Amino acid sequence: MLRMDDGAVAAAMFTTNQFAAAPVRISRDYLRNSRGHASVLIVNSGCANAATGPHGYADAQLIGDCVAQECGCAPDAVLMNSTGIIGKRLPVNNIEKAIVPLASSCVQGSAESFARAIMTTDTRLKMSTRLVDAIGSNGVANANSQNVKNTMNQAQIRVTGVAKGAGMIHPNMATMIAVITTDAALEPNELDAMLRVAVEQSFHRISIDGDTSTNDSVFAFATAQRGAAADHKELQRAFCEVARELAHMIVCDGEGFTRAFEVRVRGAASATDALAVSKTMATSMLVRCAITGGDPNWGRLLAAAGRSGAKVDPERVSLCVGDVVLFQHGQPADTPKQIAAAEFSKANVIIELDLGLGAHEDFFISSGLTQEYVKLNSEYST
Amino acid sequence: MLRMDDGAVAAAMFTTNQFAAAPVRISRDYLRNSRGHASVLIVNSGCANAATGPHGYADAQLIGDCVAQECGCAPDAVLMNSTGIIGKRLPVNNIEKAIVPLASSCVQGSAESFARAIMTTDTRLKMSTRLVDAIGSNGVANANSQNVKNTMNQAQIRVTGVAKGAGMIHPNMATMIAVITTDAALEPNELDAMLRVAVEQSFHRISIDGDTSTNDSVFAFATAQRGAAADHKELQRAFCEVARELAHMIVCDGEGFTRAFEVRVRGAASATDALAVSKTMATSMLVRCAITGGDPNWGRLLAAAGRSGAKVDPERVSLCVGDVVLFQHGQPADTPKQIAAAEFSKANVIIELDLGLGAHEDFFISSGLTQEYVKLNSEYST
Repeated sequence: MLRMDDGAVAAAMFTTNQFAAAPVRISRDYLRNSRGHASVLIVNSGCANAATGPHGYADAQLIGDCVAQECGCAPDAVLMNSTGIIGKRLPVNNIEKAIVPLASSCVQGSAESFARAIMTTDTRLKMSTRLVDAIGSNGVANANSQNVKNTMNQAQIRVTGVAKGAGMIHPNMATMIAVITTDAALEPNELDAMLRVAVEQSFHRISIDGDTSTNDSVFAFATAQRGAAADHKELQRAFCEVARELAHMIVCDGEGFTRAFEVRVRGAASATDALAVSKTMATSMLVRCAITGGDPNWGRLLAAAGRSGAKVDPERVSLCVGDVVLFQHGQPADTPKQIAAAEFSKANVIIELDLGLGAHEDFFISSGLTQEYVKLNSEYST
Repeated sequence: MLRMDDGAVAAAMFTTNQFAAAPVRISRDYLRNSRGHASVLIVNSGCANAATGPHGYADAQLIGDCVAQECGCAPDAVLMNSTGIIGKRLPVNNIEKAIVPLASSCVQGSAESFARAIMTTDTRLKMSTRLVDAIGSNGVANANSQNVKNTMNQAQIRVTGVAKGAGMIHPNMATMIAVITTDAALEPNELDAMLRVAVEQSFHRISIDGDTSTNDSVFAFATAQRGAAADHKELQRAFCEVARELAHMIVCDGEGFTRAFEVRVRGAASATDALAVSKTMATSMLVRCAITGGDPNWGRLLAAAGRSGAKVDPERVSLCVGDVVLFQHGQPADTPKQIAAAEFSKANVIIELDLGLGAHEDFFISSGLTQEYVKLNSEYST
């Protein structure tokens, strides 16, 4: 459970899956009713409460009402999410019993304990923080957001994000949850816009298995505790950095993880093409198998680009991995296999494709597909 | 090498990948030049001749010219395909040397030896034949095409198909090749139309790994040897049956194959939706992992349907596997896990989803994703 002072500003982005879970649909409704305000976020694991029909919706509503009563807020000030098996009913009684001790045990500034509480099959805590100077006493915002060491002063605004990964092993945690909080003063529409920009450059650029789950949700809260405003450009940058760091942590903590890779596409004829090519290359099963093996089978990268639906002219295409050129202007570059293999065997493989057609660029991050992943995801859900 | 009598009618469908291999581009050009005629098809393995630029195109052209000279036909009467590593040049000299003995060793009616010759990582011969009564002596076509036993008479027209699978292990056979021949008399546009209908219901409804390769090609030849016409509806049915049987053989001979499954979607609001839902469900990595494990994790099937982009109303959806109902009108059906698991553990799992929205239906066939597949495809291409 995450509690904010009453009147905290809230925003969220939810899965586009049409089998969106009951807690997703409720949170969406409540957020609209409250015009972007919330006091509590409650999360459970083990049961996704998706594909559970009207009963599932009523179960989630009941939990929300209990939380509202215990925390002394309006029912629509409670946002929620669930993660776990699809098609199973929530154990409402068990959750109800847990709400009283949960509400009383919440302490201020305990983002880390929340991050720990939402871990399921995650092997590592996923948390990221940036500080931004407040506009206030001296009236000037610091031009750079910065990594948090152990220092913080009253004139700084904090942006903290936590996430649980897209691990989908038993009990089928088909869910990514992330929460970004800030003590800046923001209007609901400002927070919403800031979250959307950050998500587009982070969680919308990673893939573990290509499946958009029924429960994926990213929440943002602005508590205005410091009452101070930050330069919006700086705050946006902090949001983006936090989201991107969390997204990278999720990729690197996927099941059976061995190696991450990033596909950077430039020279595309349109923004849509740039994303389509980078996403198709990063999510190709054959590419991901090659990455796992450190196999410089770069033909698979070109084949993925060629089937992406984007405009591609082979004669204009160049492909690099790390610092090594593999294909240039429609011709193989005759790079010795061992040199290419060394690049494909790095912990973080960087693949750069220049389409040579325009000025648009984009990127996508994924990981090698491993036997361990298949093993974990083939196991019985029972 | 497959030789037809001069003047055989030819049609083909090629990969839509923009990195289409040189032999694909040449075959496409030649078929257009010859207005749908060809005398020879030559296929090599080990090298895809894709992403090889103008040199690769010239290499393939050279091979084609050698074949034309040896077989005494026009250069554009030679169709071709290559399968193997992308980005490697053809060993032109070796192939040239093989053409003379190859041309002289071709014997009539040896579809089986051709089927055997194009096998690479295939573990089984893929061949299918149907007979259709000719319209001729008695002027009436038999209403049913039939499986070939060991009987065949002069009044019957033969449709024979062979294929090599979509195996992609070392040396990276990222190619599906199929050839369907008939001794019926057909015009080029008739053969082309017949092939397109058959491919749409077969090769366009299977997936091994979601990657459209640079070399995928399906050829059809009508040799008019019997000079007889068949009822077109019967002939079309024979083409469809042959193509569908070959497609199923390809799925069941994919690397690391353990179990096939077919997703049948009905009640879709549009034909596009019906295909989108069945394809998304059949190609979902999480679904394919569950199939491998015989895991009745049916929530993944609904989640895949929900992210397919098609119109889905959870309250109207029903899901069955085999004869067992898992989800009905927006509610889990409370089927015991063991009963569902038994259906998910069959050699050929049948999944039926009713969207309850309209009259459109479609299907898609795939196989469980296995650790063996990942292992084979992670290995060095070197």
